[in-house]
Amino acid sequence: MNTEQLTELGQQLRVDSVRVADAAGSGHPTSSMSAADLMAALLANHLHYDFDRPDHPGNDRLIFSKGHASPLLYSMYLAAGAVDEKEFLTYRTLGSRLEGHPTPRLPWVDVATGSLGQGLPVGVGMALAGQRLGHTPYHVWVLSGDSEMAEGSVWEAIEHAGDQHLDSLTLVIDVNRLGQRGPTRHQRDLDAYGRRLRAFDWHTIEIDGHDLDAVDAAFNEARSTFRKPTAIIAGTRKGRGVASVEDREGMHGKPLPDAESAIEELGGRRSIRVSVAKPAEPETHPRTAGRRGTIALPHYDVGDSVATRDAYGRALAALGTAREDVVVLDGEVSDSTRSEFFAKEHPERFFECYIAEQQMIAAAVGMQALGHVPYASTFAAFLTRAHDFLRMASVSRASINVVGSHAGVSIGQDGPSQMGLEDLAMFRAIHGSTVLHPCDANQTARLVAAMHELPGVCYLRTLRGATPVVYGPDERFPVGGSKVLRRSDADRVTLIGAGVTVHECLKAADLLAGEGFPVRVVDLYSVKPVDERTLQAAADETGCLVTVEDHHPQGGIGDAVAEVFSDGRPAPKRLVRLAVGNMPGSATPAEQLRAAGIDADSIAAGLRLLVEQTLR
Amino acid sequence: MNTEQLTELGQQLRVDSVRVADAAGSGHPTSSMSAADLMAALLANHLHYDFDRPDHPGNDRLIFSKGHASPLLYSMYLAAGAVDEKEFLTYRTLGSRLEGHPTPRLPWVDVATGSLGQGLPVGVGMALAGQRLGHTPYHVWVLSGDSEMAEGSVWEAIEHAGDQHLDSLTLVIDVNRLGQRGPTRHQRDLDAYGRRLRAFDWHTIEIDGHDLDAVDAAFNEARSTFRKPTAIIAGTRKGRGVASVEDREGMHGKPLPDAESAIEELGGRRSIRVSVAKPAEPETHPRTAGRRGTIALPHYDVGDSVATRDAYGRALAALGTAREDVVVLDGEVSDSTRSEFFAKEHPERFFECYIAEQQMIAAAVGMQALGHVPYASTFAAFLTRAHDFLRMASVSRASINVVGSHAGVSIGQDGPSQMGLEDLAMFRAIHGSTVLHPCDANQTARLVAAMHELPGVCYLRTLRGATPVVYGPDERFPVGGSKVLRRSDADRVTLIGAGVTVHECLKAADLLAGEGFPVRVVDLYSVKPVDERTLQAAADETGCLVTVEDHHPQGGIGDAVAEVFSDGRPAPKRLVRLAVGNMPGSATPAEQLRAAGIDADSIAAGLRLLVEQTLR
Repeated sequence: MNTEQLTELGQQLRVDSVRVADAAGSGHPTSSMSAADLMAALLANHLHYDFDRPDHPGNDRLIFSKGHASPLLYSMYLAAGAVDEKEFLTYRTLGSRLEGHPTPRLPWVDVATGSLGQGLPVGVGMALAGQRLGHTPYHVWVLSGDSEMAEGSVWEAIEHAGDQHLDSLTLVIDVNRLGQRGPTRHQRDLDAYGRRLRAFDWHTIEIDGHDLDAVDAAFNEARSTFRKPTAIIAGTRKGRGVASVEDREGMHGKPLPDAESAIEELGGRRSIRVSVAKPAEPETHPRTAGRRGTIALPHYDVGDSVATRDAYGRALAALGTAREDVVVLDGEVSDSTRSEFFAKEHPERFFECYIAEQQMIAAAVGMQALGHVPYASTFAAFLTRAHDFLRMASVSRASINVVGSHAGVSIGQDGPSQMGLEDLAMFRAIHGSTVLHPCDANQTARLVAAMHELPGVCYLRTLRGATPVVYGPDERFPVGGSKVLRRSDADRVTLIGAGVTVHECLKAADLLAGEGFPVRVVDLYSVKPVDERTLQAAADETGCLVTVEDHHPQGGIGDAVAEVFSDGRPAPKRLVRLAVGNMPGSATPAEQLRAAGIDADSIAAGLRLLVEQTLR
Repeated sequence: MNTEQLTELGQQLRVDSVRVADAAGSGHPTSSMSAADLMAALLANHLHYDFDRPDHPGNDRLIFSKGHASPLLYSMYLAAGAVDEKEFLTYRTLGSRLEGHPTPRLPWVDVATGSLGQGLPVGVGMALAGQRLGHTPYHVWVLSGDSEMAEGSVWEAIEHAGDQHLDSLTLVIDVNRLGQRGPTRHQRDLDAYGRRLRAFDWHTIEIDGHDLDAVDAAFNEARSTFRKPTAIIAGTRKGRGVASVEDREGMHGKPLPDAESAIEELGGRRSIRVSVAKPAEPETHPRTAGRRGTIALPHYDVGDSVATRDAYGRALAALGTAREDVVVLDGEVSDSTRSEFFAKEHPERFFECYIAEQQMIAAAVGMQALGHVPYASTFAAFLTRAHDFLRMASVSRASINVVGSHAGVSIGQDGPSQMGLEDLAMFRAIHGSTVLHPCDANQTARLVAAMHELPGVCYLRTLRGATPVVYGPDERFPVGGSKVLRRSDADRVTLIGAGVTVHECLKAADLLAGEGFPVRVVDLYSVKPVDERTLQAAADETGCLVTVEDHHPQGGIGDAVAEVFSDGRPAPKRLVRLAVGNMPGSATPAEQLRAAGIDADSIAAGLRLLVEQTLR
């Protein structure tokens, strides 16, 4: 399209943004209007996308990091003929795919946005996949607002993209001067963004975002820039084109006061249909297709002592050999998480993310959107850094595997800053998640393989220290299952642990068995979904359930077990939870477990007391 | 001290770091040795600190963001005479204040570190307080590693510090080239850090961190730099001074292989005692002392309709008038959280953090360490961005108030990215936290005032939409309490809600009362601690407890109620939880509540079914 046609298309996108927000009675038309010219040029002249085949591997990727500008995105879909007028007007209504912020319920949306500062990190993941994993070439376009440049996650992404020479990535910053609550930090100072980005080795282009010749030229320059990502820093005006709202404060996130006259001021409705260029390249299959037969998982002998983090690393390396779609990311602690075992065998599919956990999870989300199966690891404690990205991954319907090592007080001397004590609570509350916490090496290996097939956000919690191998290598561990490790018909209490506490429960049970007090022990390796049947049976048969976890008392295994009995079914006679209620300091692993009251002796002492009480 | 003396002190700090890690059998001596010369010069010639009076308002602040270099910090304390040799050698043992990573169990440590990338954001908060809140002048020194410069939170802080001209802040980057797992991204390229920092309007000084003349001069330059924060970017060598470990990979986080010969190589033990300069300035009291009498909280009439976020903002403004120690921070959404009401009345104590939630919480932690009482707000959903900072706040024994607005599906059309549905789970699992969720305006006002006096991390959850005022302005709401809003001796079920679901529960109870089916209703405004007595009584008297929450089923109100019955006491006959189990889309607030099954009609339908089952 030429400049005149682009100008008309820009106005159409504005009119339609105003229309659709007005119909919905809510939304962000002014944030859409500022970026309308930018997106008109992109859609008509630069985007390569086959709307009939959203799974074409050569499609460009377009991420609206400023997800609140959804009226603009949907107006583009309308112009491209991807949605029709009838569906368009369902915006923000019950059941509509056109949600207030875009989600992958629409086939052309790869990832959900709406939590600002996430689009660029996800785009970095997509560009990395394109650069390193043998995809048909594509370009990644990210539209971001100026306000969200304050998010640290954006700078993690900028650093990573510059360092990795991601020339297939273009960031378009819609510098419209106004955030939600008023002026942004840098207002119209385009160079404030430019000089920062250049310091991170980006190519930058500063333009008037309403000058369509400049916009068009900038996109050409971005696509042809070599060995550097490009930022198009576009000065724009929020609410552009309608005097009553243009560049005015207090006009964020609401329909225009008078939509009819605004549409008139914008020149009325248009019906330009854009024929979007399709990807020119033939399809080449990325590294997501190949399967090289069965997975040769490492085996461990019962009675050996192995850290589950070691078992994780070894299983992952074996999985990588059998499954070419596996990609691994780590936050500069691969020697601790043991993802280094994978890195050594499959360096081309290992992504060092340095200490930038948000970027790590975002990259995983980006890669899974392209068909890869990511495993991302760091210390369990530091995964809290990426909580918002994990939450949004579930809105994105993303399937990612996340692995947290160094769980709980059992790490020992390093102290509470390094201990994952909130991770189970965090992951359990993520919609559609799976939460696994193995206690031995063979179990870990099996679960690592099982995660490969699971949808949603899947979490595996591993231990720093070695634990005894209690299962044979042929044992199976279905997700949603559990293992009963001690049982008799005379059991009067059931101990329920996972990870390190399974071994403390076993020791306690053996102690008590010696005293003529038989105790059942359940290994609850699948924390979510939880094995309701086994727990219900244990409640019926033993009366008392005691959960033991190396985690804070809230949100973990105790809560998972209690939930089983929260659907109106009869509860067990007694429920007791042992967990880390103290603030730990430094001490040996054994001292830590003792101080928290979750070692074998504490468990045994608690059970003796409980049985006395129950009998009274 | 002159150069020669400083050189000797640097060697002493190295020797002591090696000694103490050797005695403990763990720790990070090599990460300490790289920064020893830097810290020798700081301690002897530049730090102003009265170790006998850690609460002196004029004390400089020293934050070891690279908290794993605790051997160095404790060696400094030894040199300053703050700890003696006997305590020094308790490092990393059970009960010792000298933990693996520093915590405020030591009176000279303001905030816990060990999760990298947090020291600078906290330091920014302290420098902001010094700049704006009338403290005796002090300098804030932050020692950071090079690896942690990859954390986005560091760049949030760099942006904030440059923008606010924080010339009382100095960042010392120990560029020792090696992270935990191997080389850092920029290795010895000091200018990679320098040009980035300069782009953010910092003053930078690049030096050889083992050239003590240069180090000494850099500290002088940093202190005298005007209107800009300074970064001293120091090239160093990890394990400096001991050939077998110096600048070698694989030597992170472990004692030296042969401590005795290493100490010999470093010239043996020394016993230099440093006389640290005390703050020269007389004490002036910051804005933490003044109390201007009783708090004139706004009152609301029963039956009025008011959003709890509005009540939050108004109460906060009133609290600010009566309590000069209150400071307020917001993540560029003060028009939504309503902290703008405070900002308008007390602009000098309002801190705009832009969209940088990690920086916001870190600044709050820094300010509370200096005696202020911070209230930090954004959307509940976006507080997940700061999860790691909230977790570390608890390790810091920090008292901060955090407010999350736009909780739950009841926000309506904006969709899941904007809905706080995991926030209760996150905050409940934080050690020592308090979690409050009011349902009406008078209750909100009272709780906002109560939070002022609470220790630990205190969370208040507010609603976007208006809810009816059900309590009079004189009603009291103790933390740990609840309110029984409907009750009779014939109650056969107890409904337990908080926030918006209280009103749905009341409507359901009224519906069912009309059918001759009396139902108790409990307003569980204090989610943690929870009112065990009232819940126990409700269980005893009505048999069935039904929790209703606008939150995911995990970690919230259902779990909080279940926990009451997890200490071995008899459980209620039936426990049922209603929560948001679906992935919401866009819809009106009423439609959202209906879709999640937590509106009055769904609750009533569920209760009818439950009672039928129970009677069967």
